[in-house]
Amino acid sequence: MSKPYVMGVDIGGTNTVFGIVDARGHVVASDSIKTLKHTDFDSYIEELHAEMERLIKANDAEDQIQGIGIGAPNANYYTGEIQNPPNLPWGDVIPLAEKMSKAFGGIPVAITNDANAAALGEMTYGAARGLRDFIMITLGTGVGSGIVINGQLVYGHDGFAGELGHIVVKRNNGRMCGCGRTGCLEAYCSATGVARTAREFIELRSEPSKLRDIPVEEITSKHVYDAAVAGDKMAKEIFEYTAKILGDALADMVAFSSPQAIILFGGLAKSGDLLLKPLREEFEKALMPIFKGKCKILVSELKEADAAVLGASALGWEAKYRYEG
Amino acid sequence: MSKPYVMGVDIGGTNTVFGIVDARGHVVASDSIKTLKHTDFDSYIEELHAEMERLIKANDAEDQIQGIGIGAPNANYYTGEIQNPPNLPWGDVIPLAEKMSKAFGGIPVAITNDANAAALGEMTYGAARGLRDFIMITLGTGVGSGIVINGQLVYGHDGFAGELGHIVVKRNNGRMCGCGRTGCLEAYCSATGVARTAREFIELRSEPSKLRDIPVEEITSKHVYDAAVAGDKMAKEIFEYTAKILGDALADMVAFSSPQAIILFGGLAKSGDLLLKPLREEFEKALMPIFKGKCKILVSELKEADAAVLGASALGWEAKYRYEG
Repeated sequence: MSKPYVMGVDIGGTNTVFGIVDARGHVVASDSIKTLKHTDFDSYIEELHAEMERLIKANDAEDQIQGIGIGAPNANYYTGEIQNPPNLPWGDVIPLAEKMSKAFGGIPVAITNDANAAALGEMTYGAARGLRDFIMITLGTGVGSGIVINGQLVYGHDGFAGELGHIVVKRNNGRMCGCGRTGCLEAYCSATGVARTAREFIELRSEPSKLRDIPVEEITSKHVYDAAVAGDKMAKEIFEYTAKILGDALADMVAFSSPQAIILFGGLAKSGDLLLKPLREEFEKALMPIFKGKCKILVSELKEADAAVLGASALGWEAKYRYEG
Repeated sequence: MSKPYVMGVDIGGTNTVFGIVDARGHVVASDSIKTLKHTDFDSYIEELHAEMERLIKANDAEDQIQGIGIGAPNANYYTGEIQNPPNLPWGDVIPLAEKMSKAFGGIPVAITNDANAAALGEMTYGAARGLRDFIMITLGTGVGSGIVINGQLVYGHDGFAGELGHIVVKRNNGRMCGCGRTGCLEAYCSATGVARTAREFIELRSEPSKLRDIPVEEITSKHVYDAAVAGDKMAKEIFEYTAKILGDALADMVAFSSPQAIILFGGLAKSGDLLLKPLREEFEKALMPIFKGKCKILVSELKEADAAVLGASALGWEAKYRYEG
């Protein structure tokens, strides 16, 4: 029999990336389309399907695709729908699994949100291989999470478990969060949260900093990183501030599911010891005595360019939904 | 074949209660011994075994006991040991499952902590029948928890998952907690936490209250309950304060595992609408929009006198560890 493949698809607000993946987690080929070129979902699926078929043909992989796994914002594993996505223009309830399976003549499709897909990818091909209890935290524009307990991804009764970017870390006077509440972890420990911290530090403190040379509304977490690498004291303190809040929050998560490891993924996770050193210290300090020294903080081992597709593809191996219309 | 039974054992700091339970959750017979009569663990097990055998004989249940489930503080499901129990005098590592199975000639034994046992009892016989995703919160002297995801109790990689009494609800100037840290949920929302709130309110506020008639160090949550029932305004506000902190914490738990229900058990859970009404309001208010209206707060349906034994017994049905000498 010819080699089995799955396809992984990552639907982001800007690009939709898709790839053919083999059982060892090797991305055989990948490509992308612009997500927002289409204001109509059917025409989006039409282009995506055509481009995916083209990639399959170009790699002589017809009849070898076992299933398709898709990561997308607010994607519900149980219903196969994207529900109330914040950054997509195709309506409140988008029947993604159905339309995709139909386009491919009934191929099995499974969907979940991007952070869950990242956790599956890490468990199947990355730093979480062999781990049965871990939590994936994605530190990007927002903060997402995928929780694995006893070797299984936690979906919750409605498919929306694992919103750890929205546990509340500041009960009073917390920052506004995109979810409509205040004080969420995401408002502090995402890339945008770090930029907000930088703006607050610049306004509320008086010491000199390279960050003051940048127009305050233009500051990004990348500026903070570059300044810290160059030895800027305030920039380093911004990472320490972020690490304290994140470390405290991760310690609460350990009290929930007592994982073997917490795995960080995304832009901020690549800050190296600027973030990791204070984070590991604050985390250990914050843990209940019974959990101290038992849970590692690791960084994803997946190449960022491949990670989204790999994560989504991991879901393809177990996809069960088929359009039978 | 004769009717199958299990035995449930609940080891508390004062009493050890044990009972014979049938498959429908009926406690056929039960009895108890004093836990702390024995400073030596072997002599404790000897008396407990003798009394359990006596109960079995008295009920003609020889050869019908399929297994023994035990709930005990800091009991580790994986190792069968009680580890570093705060209130038991038998050492740091107590081989409970081994000694119990040995005493009974190799009968299967399973152990877990009391809150996990309560969750199993509720799932097997109580308010959580048919639920696959719920969280049990025990509001007693402390705050404990048992988490069920996808129909399975969450033990974590080390057997100690579900310490939700020790998520931090006050990051600054939090109350001292028995775990050695500050600001834990348990320091506010246990029976003792409510009494501490009463003492703070009495000292920091000036309005009249029946609670001022009680010597301040003697105030218990029962006094607060009685005063609130009698219409005392400050006592009612103590429940509202407790409900706000608990509701916020429960909302964070929902962001983790998205359960269908949170089930409350223990003394404070019996406060009725004094606690439940403001709790449900604060909880709904605190939830992320995506979770609003989806998760019920319920009260345990198990009779308190039977609940500990029933919960432990539920573990007996699936007990696998046998002492093989």
